[in-house]
Amino acid sequence: MNKSALYKLSYGVYVVTSWKDGKATGCTANSAMQITSSPATVAVSVNHDNYTNECISESGVFAVSILGEHCDPLVIGNFGFKSGRNSDKFADYAPLIKNMLPVVPQASAYIVCRVVDKMETSTHTVFLGEVTDCDILNDDPPMTYAYYHDVIKGRSPKNAPTYQGD
Amino acid sequence: MNKSALYKLSYGVYVVTSWKDGKATGCTANSAMQITSSPATVAVSVNHDNYTNECISESGVFAVSILGEHCDPLVIGNFGFKSGRNSDKFADYAPLIKNMLPVVPQASAYIVCRVVDKMETSTHTVFLGEVTDCDILNDDPPMTYAYYHDVIKGRSPKNAPTYQGD
Repeated sequence: MNKSALYKLSYGVYVVTSWKDGKATGCTANSAMQITSSPATVAVSVNHDNYTNECISESGVFAVSILGEHCDPLVIGNFGFKSGRNSDKFADYAPLIKNMLPVVPQASAYIVCRVVDKMETSTHTVFLGEVTDCDILNDDPPMTYAYYHDVIKGRSPKNAPTYQGD
Repeated sequence: MNKSALYKLSYGVYVVTSWKDGKATGCTANSAMQITSSPATVAVSVNHDNYTNECISESGVFAVSILGEHCDPLVIGNFGFKSGRNSDKFADYAPLIKNMLPVVPQASAYIVCRVVDKMETSTHTVFLGEVTDCDILNDDPPMTYAYYHDVIKGRSPKNAPTYQGD
């Protein structure tokens, strides 16, 4: 088994956000996909260790901020390489509020969902969300994970399914 | 709600395959993502109406053939725009057999899985598979759905979550 085959799956670069105790938080993610078209539903996969998982489980809502190729890479680091448990991820990026969910203002599009189902795995929860709001914010092409890796030379946080070690 | 925001999610182009009654079949899909890294698991979303859904449900196994940018677009059409219920999708493409699963020989990588969980939605089943085999077949860069749409000028089959109508 050559596990590098798994890195041939294609992804985007997203920030999955939610709320807890009136505080907005979120984490960088590459695992999001549309599941059904009518009603529109989207699945996201979030590591159990991520504070965002706890926030989505409790609030029952999440948003996906879709980052574009020209998004400041610092945004990815801000949401990807520290925990919302002991830091305010939105300290430097006042969220747009869309349907009561925080959206990263540098995103090129966003999708707001309410959780309608979930599937547990050993390390991640797959949340299925029905889309309650979505819109395009600018015409920057969506950043793919390959672009992030090859052009921006970014890496995966340790909690990502695609983490490859140091 | 501007549903075109959903088209900003990034995907690859895959053929999800399985078996039934000793016959290999499969369908073109763009909804596949890795969920956990250890053990490695992958989720795929397959429409209830697709014969492949029935085959995966019964056999408990599936493979994901990852198509590269230089894959013949006829492969996508062959697996995407007819049903395995009344046609032999592998008639023109003798499958590679990997861990007893059929793999599209034109793929640039493949992942073989056994189903460990599933989540039902109104129109699609999300199958969670533990990876039992995977490898890279050639160094063609993975085809993204955006590349298929923008460069190959391809469209979505009607059963895809990203179907946009005619």
